[in-house]
Amino acid sequence: MNRIITIGREFGSGGRELGRKLAAELDIPYYDQEILTQIAQKTELAEEYVSKVLETERFFYFPVTVGHSFTCMPNLAFDFHEAIYREQHNIIREMAARSDCIIIGRCADYILRDLHPLRLFVYASMQHKIERCRARNAEEADLSDKELKNRIQRIAQGRAKYYRFYTGHVWGAPENYDLCINTSQLEIDDLVKAILPLVAR
Amino acid sequence: MNRIITIGREFGSGGRELGRKLAAELDIPYYDQEILTQIAQKTELAEEYVSKVLETERFFYFPVTVGHSFTCMPNLAFDFHEAIYREQHNIIREMAARSDCIIIGRCADYILRDLHPLRLFVYASMQHKIERCRARNAEEADLSDKELKNRIQRIAQGRAKYYRFYTGHVWGAPENYDLCINTSQLEIDDLVKAILPLVAR
Repeated sequence: MNRIITIGREFGSGGRELGRKLAAELDIPYYDQEILTQIAQKTELAEEYVSKVLETERFFYFPVTVGHSFTCMPNLAFDFHEAIYREQHNIIREMAARSDCIIIGRCADYILRDLHPLRLFVYASMQHKIERCRARNAEEADLSDKELKNRIQRIAQGRAKYYRFYTGHVWGAPENYDLCINTSQLEIDDLVKAILPLVAR
Repeated sequence: MNRIITIGREFGSGGRELGRKLAAELDIPYYDQEILTQIAQKTELAEEYVSKVLETERFFYFPVTVGHSFTCMPNLAFDFHEAIYREQHNIIREMAARSDCIIIGRCADYILRDLHPLRLFVYASMQHKIERCRARNAEEADLSDKELKNRIQRIAQGRAKYYRFYTGHVWGAPENYDLCINTSQLEIDDLVKAILPLVAR
């Protein structure tokens, strides 16, 4: 069976850097943006739209009033949302079947649960995430602490809702992961070394 | 500065085994029951009493009715509780000052927070904890799943209340630790190897 590592991560915690470095060390594929690109190709939808759908909760129906009674009308976006999630599921299953790999986010821990991947969750203190965002991303370098905090919280809320919706579980709750890693006081390079013995063959 | 590792752990999760093996690998002292023994010696209280106090919440005052108004009377156990906690604090500080070491439980992560210890929290699924308790402890081998579950939950509640009371934080909440380790799917020996790079000099 292939050796699969899934990484859930708070925005700004360094989860992506950890995943990239671990993939380089193990010499195995690392899938992140690639998943969006593949979904967009298969569904013929714009990558930005796919990204937006995968960061928000899905609503099946809008309640509307007809005469004096309530009824439900299909949400026009429903078919697109359904197709995107189905494609994401298929693509992640295909990636895991093809070879050892690391998959970032997108409920991969849940989608691949029967394969018992090593499930990591990477997090950090708000202060650490703010500093990390500012240092690593030119686009965010000029934002105030408050603006960055709002951005980090908004992204976290989206990920938490999405995870809850598709898995029924709480995003970041320790019981859903094998290892929860706080990067506030630890170096990413040391953490890469720490994870290697857990995936050794 | 000495290299300190603190380990919070759910009962039955293997936190103690992880601590012992890590201490052997690093060739540094491991403190667990030793803390209770030292407190009992210094306070001249029975070790069982000390253990019981450290597993339950401390109540300073009982409200009592005098005439028609409420007032507060000192709890008779207060002085003992106060002495036990003060001794525990001093003993843990002394241990950390003496040499590199591993300290199990007892809010050591909080008591030593200014020394930035590596703070581990070890947990597992209920099923894993039940199986582990039954396999490792003759006293628990004959208990039913329900009895073991009750025991595990009761101990967890005691530790959570105690941690909340002394630190103001949530026991087991990821933000209070550097690494939260789920032993349900991982081998303790591999976890020992995983932690070594995080305390290398």
